[in-house]
Amino acid sequence: MKSDLQNYLAQQQADALWVTGPAQHNPFMMYLTGGGHITQADLILPVGGEPLLCHAPMERDEAAKTGLNTLSYSKYPIKERLAQAEGDRLTAHALLYKSIFEEVGLTAGKVILYGLTDAGKMLSTVNKLQDLLPGLSFHGDHNDAILLQAMATKDADEIERIRKMAGVVIEVVSRVAEFLTSHQVSNNLLMKEIGEPLLLGEVKANINLWLAELGAENPNDTIFAIGRDAGVPHSSGNPTDPMALGQTIVFDIFPCEKGGGYFYDFTRTWCLGYAPDEAQALYDQVKSVYDQVTSELKTDVNAAHYQDRACDLFEAMGHSTIRQDPTIESGYVHSLGHGLGLHIHEKPWFSQKNDPTNILAPGSVFTIEPGLYYPEKGLGVRLEDSYYVTPSGKFEKFIDYPMELCLSMGKKKR
Amino acid sequence: MKSDLQNYLAQQQADALWVTGPAQHNPFMMYLTGGGHITQADLILPVGGEPLLCHAPMERDEAAKTGLNTLSYSKYPIKERLAQAEGDRLTAHALLYKSIFEEVGLTAGKVILYGLTDAGKMLSTVNKLQDLLPGLSFHGDHNDAILLQAMATKDADEIERIRKMAGVVIEVVSRVAEFLTSHQVSNNLLMKEIGEPLLLGEVKANINLWLAELGAENPNDTIFAIGRDAGVPHSSGNPTDPMALGQTIVFDIFPCEKGGGYFYDFTRTWCLGYAPDEAQALYDQVKSVYDQVTSELKTDVNAAHYQDRACDLFEAMGHSTIRQDPTIESGYVHSLGHGLGLHIHEKPWFSQKNDPTNILAPGSVFTIEPGLYYPEKGLGVRLEDSYYVTPSGKFEKFIDYPMELCLSMGKKKR
Repeated sequence: MKSDLQNYLAQQQADALWVTGPAQHNPFMMYLTGGGHITQADLILPVGGEPLLCHAPMERDEAAKTGLNTLSYSKYPIKERLAQAEGDRLTAHALLYKSIFEEVGLTAGKVILYGLTDAGKMLSTVNKLQDLLPGLSFHGDHNDAILLQAMATKDADEIERIRKMAGVVIEVVSRVAEFLTSHQVSNNLLMKEIGEPLLLGEVKANINLWLAELGAENPNDTIFAIGRDAGVPHSSGNPTDPMALGQTIVFDIFPCEKGGGYFYDFTRTWCLGYAPDEAQALYDQVKSVYDQVTSELKTDVNAAHYQDRACDLFEAMGHSTIRQDPTIESGYVHSLGHGLGLHIHEKPWFSQKNDPTNILAPGSVFTIEPGLYYPEKGLGVRLEDSYYVTPSGKFEKFIDYPMELCLSMGKKKR
Repeated sequence: MKSDLQNYLAQQQADALWVTGPAQHNPFMMYLTGGGHITQADLILPVGGEPLLCHAPMERDEAAKTGLNTLSYSKYPIKERLAQAEGDRLTAHALLYKSIFEEVGLTAGKVILYGLTDAGKMLSTVNKLQDLLPGLSFHGDHNDAILLQAMATKDADEIERIRKMAGVVIEVVSRVAEFLTSHQVSNNLLMKEIGEPLLLGEVKANINLWLAELGAENPNDTIFAIGRDAGVPHSSGNPTDPMALGQTIVFDIFPCEKGGGYFYDFTRTWCLGYAPDEAQALYDQVKSVYDQVTSELKTDVNAAHYQDRACDLFEAMGHSTIRQDPTIESGYVHSLGHGLGLHIHEKPWFSQKNDPTNILAPGSVFTIEPGLYYPEKGLGVRLEDSYYVTPSGKFEKFIDYPMELCLSMGKKKR
């Protein structure tokens, strides 16, 4: 949790965090500032100290709203830095950071860098800064041990924000189900009132509209894939596909709060009108793995244990798994889940068996999403809910929603 | 233009581009792949060669849709790399890149790195990779001389995509104007039918909804700021402000194609009902600078020349400018414009006098946005349109929209 951040800094013998980039759509900056309309900032958090937020002068109001100590870049005018750098823009940029680190009294030690920004420019800038301040060394949090470890367990406020997003997701999913099932059917296809088939792209356009109406956004799009595409886990779906009865539809929706805040992640698999036996059989197997694994969840267990459990169960049913062969494209081809928060994928990971910090613990938020894929048969099934662990160690699903495969047609619109 | 990319690579004596990160909301990857639901990829473009797109196995369909040569990460299984790295995840990650660079025959030379990704993890990974492949050196494009130079001039397809976004923006702006002016007024405030004041946050919620409906998104929010907030260029506006008559409203809208494509950027300043003399006088000055500067636009001139012109004109009117003092918060406090494309801010820059590549040329797309700000008086005015330069060197505004300050109340809803 955020309150553990200073401990993690000290444990990793780091002297400061340095977070760079915008405040929106940049999970690290969002976590430490709360967001706002800040297009470029640098936040320095020294071990044992308070954060300092450096910002452009035009964004002083938005920076002030964060409640953090602030410093305007205008204190170190670009004209003077360029003169000092004899016109070299890279050096002039590195000189800005040199001044900021000197301002906070950091001229020696280990700095951990974070932030969604152009990696190449940052690489050159940091290498130049390293020459200017040889006492400092710069590293990434490649073991997810400091900021990413803090983010791995959520406090009550964060849980409530994710729960609100869960509510948005269920409202949108409900509207999509109602929208689909209220259509007329002709020649096995859903038909619009004007007598043309409803297309997948039109369903997705409604999803985007309803998410916006409810104050959310889906920066990574939404997976709504039918038939063969449902058999490819990350196929986002083909906009010109008609909506046919009796085919598996994988609907995986993972929006976040407007501006790039907390995500929710949820998947259902539907067959419109009727479910063919082969699809129903596959669904039943995925559902049984979902039920079995979720019944076994315990704190202090490495998340990767449950990926092993899912592989055990699917292999016993005769399916190939990614554990047997990481290159397979049919069977159980992905991970059972992932942590969820300001990143759509974050700690706890379901693939890091040997990392003792990678456990399910109070405050963990994660998905459980078993699936089976047979693209060559035009079949795919995935079922996903997101869970969290209460302070007392109980596992709770954020929100309930029916899991049935078959959506009966002929519902009336509200 | 994209067709010049290989020339720029050769001019900078670079041996390859390396673009990393997702395909969406990552301008560099979007530019070279066209986008798609690809959550993590690496694209290598060797000088004189063809691009290779490396992707996760689950995203093979989305990778194939790009039409590029592809390579699945599953060719280099994480298990084997972790064994080789004795469990060190950072080294195992760097080994993936070592294999990819060896695959394309790049073991010596200069590699230019791009991509929106966590800068810290990438820094550590590249430094480790440097140890594994000492013949390669890695740099950012800190002079915007290769990929960013190619992106600085647009071909006909790109111009048409930006023009479509211009159409979306004008439709949304028209709806906002109609929405505002069709409200009743009481005690100088816009009132909803239920007898409560209309709040700024409700206007912004409609903007988000209409953008989604029209297939766009606004990842960086929208500026809709009234009164004192209008006097702070990057204040995004306070959601609980009522909409009062006679106050300046700065409405700066800069959405992009859904998924993180081409942007459009546009600003109007409005006073609802009536414009006080002080606001009108300020507006008239900004408008005269807009008219003067846009009448002087010529190809082969450095964009920074026009920032100087704007400062000349505003200073002659008695306003302070950022040229005189970069720390000012009243007067003309920002740049005249910026290039526009897959980034909301890109080349040509209006601040780089000494860079001969920073000129207005056929294919340039850029904003012109003079403004005056007096937050202490509760006043701000900015007027902005986006322009492009035709192949024959003509300057064209993408789209027309009335520039008047005063929006008369009492319009009927359509």
